[in-house]
Amino acid sequence: MNNYFSIQDIDSLPDWVDEAIKIKKDPLSGKNLGRDKTIGLLFFNPSLRTRLSTQKAALNLGMNVIVMNFTGEGWSLEYGDGIVMNQGNSEHIKEAAQVVSQYCDVLGIRAFAKLENREDDYNEKVLKSFIKHSTIPVINMESATGHPLQALTDAITITENQKNKKPKVVLSWAPHPKALPQAVANSFVEMMQHMDANFVITHPVGFELASHITKQVPIDYNQKNALKDADFVYIKNWSSYQDYGKTLDNDLSWKMTQEKMELTNEAKFMHCLPVRRNVVVDDAVIDSKNSLVIEQANNRTYAAQLVLTKILEKS
Amino acid sequence: MNNYFSIQDIDSLPDWVDEAIKIKKDPLSGKNLGRDKTIGLLFFNPSLRTRLSTQKAALNLGMNVIVMNFTGEGWSLEYGDGIVMNQGNSEHIKEAAQVVSQYCDVLGIRAFAKLENREDDYNEKVLKSFIKHSTIPVINMESATGHPLQALTDAITITENQKNKKPKVVLSWAPHPKALPQAVANSFVEMMQHMDANFVITHPVGFELASHITKQVPIDYNQKNALKDADFVYIKNWSSYQDYGKTLDNDLSWKMTQEKMELTNEAKFMHCLPVRRNVVVDDAVIDSKNSLVIEQANNRTYAAQLVLTKILEKS
Amino acid sequence: MNNYFSIQDIDSLPDWVDEAIKIKKDPLSGKNLGRDKTIGLLFFNPSLRTRLSTQKAALNLGMNVIVMNFTGEGWSLEYGDGIVMNQGNSEHIKEAAQVVSQYCDVLGIRAFAKLENREDDYNEKVLKSFIKHSTIPVINMESATGHPLQALTDAITITENQKNKKPKVVLSWAPHPKALPQAVANSFVEMMQHMDANFVITHPVGFELASHITKQVPIDYNQKNALKDADFVYIKNWSSYQDYGKTLDNDLSWKMTQEKMELTNEAKFMHCLPVRRNVVVDDAVIDSKNSLVIEQANNRTYAAQLVLTKILEKS
Repeated sequence: MNNYFSIQDIDSLPDWVDEAIKIKKDPLSGKNLGRDKTIGLLFFNPSLRTRLSTQKAALNLGMNVIVMNFTGEGWSLEYGDGIVMNQGNSEHIKEAAQVVSQYCDVLGIRAFAKLENREDDYNEKVLKSFIKHSTIPVINMESATGHPLQALTDAITITENQKNKKPKVVLSWAPHPKALPQAVANSFVEMMQHMDANFVITHPVGFELASHITKQVPIDYNQKNALKDADFVYIKNWSSYQDYGKTLDNDLSWKMTQEKMELTNEAKFMHCLPVRRNVVVDDAVIDSKNSLVIEQANNRTYAAQLVLTKILEKS
Repeated sequence: MNNYFSIQDIDSLPDWVDEAIKIKKDPLSGKNLGRDKTIGLLFFNPSLRTRLSTQKAALNLGMNVIVMNFTGEGWSLEYGDGIVMNQGNSEHIKEAAQVVSQYCDVLGIRAFAKLENREDDYNEKVLKSFIKHSTIPVINMESATGHPLQALTDAITITENQKNKKPKVVLSWAPHPKALPQAVANSFVEMMQHMDANFVITHPVGFELASHITKQVPIDYNQKNALKDADFVYIKNWSSYQDYGKTLDNDLSWKMTQEKMELTNEAKFMHCLPVRRNVVVDDAVIDSKNSLVIEQANNRTYAAQLVLTKILEKS
Repeated sequence: MNNYFSIQDIDSLPDWVDEAIKIKKDPLSGKNLGRDKTIGLLFFNPSLRTRLSTQKAALNLGMNVIVMNFTGEGWSLEYGDGIVMNQGNSEHIKEAAQVVSQYCDVLGIRAFAKLENREDDYNEKVLKSFIKHSTIPVINMESATGHPLQALTDAITITENQKNKKPKVVLSWAPHPKALPQAVANSFVEMMQHMDANFVITHPVGFELASHITKQVPIDYNQKNALKDADFVYIKNWSSYQDYGKTLDNDLSWKMTQEKMELTNEAKFMHCLPVRRNVVVDDAVIDSKNSLVIEQANNRTYAAQLVLTKILEKS
């Protein structure tokens, strides 16, 4: 594998999920695979789970880890071709990516959506520029429009917890005080189209995700109706794709409650974290025995470790 | 040992001090103890000695180290139970602590007093919340009201340098341009009550530490009188406990001078660092042959390494 | 070797360059040399190449690495002797340097020129104070007036790429939107005086570097004339030494263009990076087959690894 940019880079999802679950049972079994290899983790945004779990995964493989908060610790990057660089940016991505490639064997990069201009975000300027100019494999640690390590984690977690062969999975929009990117929702929607699941998205009118991502997935604007008989309920806020980056009417009635969970088939509750308690979801739901959020975070390590294993085995 | 939250977690001080001194003589003797174990160091405040010495201690034990400046690199934490999280905080301590526990084997946490509300600080919200919700041992790297790694260091340093069986130890308040927490003074006072020492505190009226900490320790408002025949003089500024967080009258005459040191029994001079030269203490004193401040900082490594050894041996 | 403060610390440049090229061929050959040794990298300024390549060099030697952004993560340092520290600085360099020396075996320090006061910068307060008070070897990771790791890199790169025994090397000033330090230019000028090269400096009137550094090196105010028959063209902006820290007339006509490169003997193009494209140098030049900038950055690892090897072999 060259890069892990999106879930399109997964050649066989069932095999990957199986392998990740094997790694989880014996996390140090690949301890020699990464010996004398170095991963560079470049953060343009805050991170807790991704920051720590990716480090942990690399350490489990015996790799060296170099972490860099690019904003502040390095130079402000220019991405434009042919630009006269007489403004704020000190270094061009062409040099930065090539240079970093010489010190590391694998790169992880986090660069969120700015939510200012849809085309800019959906062009994935930062990640795609690093991939274009790097000479080593690049891992997406959440980009403007996708979070494929989270989606792989979610596939692992659903597989571990499903009771029937074709579970009903519901992705439900939730209210949030701030405008958030669509990245987690996008990758989850893409992932569910590769799993054997009865998958439904529910959100208020105006919060439709990009149609090139949702494709044929049914959308139900009635949350309660969508939740009926669900086996997994995945809650996530995202800002509008149409009225890009806007929160529109932040309808608090979409919060996940215990009452709504009772419409489901004793569904497991999922969220990528961090989560705003009692805005996105009630304490009673996230603290219930059906909440998988902590186990999801745990599985982040094994998703990252699987991706690193694939990359190291090929290099 | 589960946690190292305060010096109450030391089961036998003489044994601990002996063991730390043994570690100091052969710092790599436990090199295999921490193999494939990871310590996560979470900083909510600046740190030089604690940051580096705790890393060094972990490396001496063969551990992996992950350092995170929580403020800025992660998400702003909410600690309140049942709160509707529609304000500035993005993540609840319940998730953060459980999640981090899955990536690490031990956690170190630094979270200073805010000096705004005494009850808030003395409730030790941050440290106690991490301890409550973590599933792995937690080490206090200076909390709102205590700095037990520093106090253990001080016990080691005094033991190494004492000439008589029951030395006279004086903790003397010093002036300072900024309001500082009571953490170092508190832990030192607690520690001295467990050592075989003739211990006296001296400070201006109004700077009394919490009575549940000072207990029966004699307080002398006359600095010169207190210093007479001292074997160890520990200088430290702290802000008022009564008029919480205030510096009151910042009496510069309390600075430690060579003239005052001459009242002592050739006392050793101690300070936890960083120190404001010529405000807290004169150059002549800190630069004298009786100054132990650099050796104290050195012993920080062995105090941390002892605590980690205790935790690793038990896990 | 005790310290690597300037290129004066190189005892035999040809031997050093040979050794660095050997290390480059087998970077892990010294993997045991740094076992159980720790390097502390202290940054007072941003860094990409130096940050990553020095870590990589240390990892290649099997060292532990502790990175600290001193500004923000630690305490603000005071450097003055006898100062009453009642202002903004919390810790004196005397303590900081001695303390850090106890946790590490080697220190790397980056502290740029402030460009406010020439005497302050050229006194090298930060680096020299750390060297004075540290008890372990100190490596200059770019100080106020020199960047000797870059200059060593440049010597390696020129040696690798020279076609004739005594190449013509031209250091040419370039325009830049911000005032930059003289550090890279200074160390390059010093280095060239130790190499068997026909070396010329070219810059507009008013941008003369310090005469104690340029010594007898010829200066040509006519850029095109200087470039004739050059084998290596090193481009770099620096602010004025005379009118200290000023950019004077930022003459855009000094930008390096393909047209100017055609005056040379198919010269190799060099720059330390980061570089402002189309201000300092045209895309056509930096993207040409004669551009060495990426290889220069690569050689940063081996320059640092050589310096560390010298230090470890002696300790």
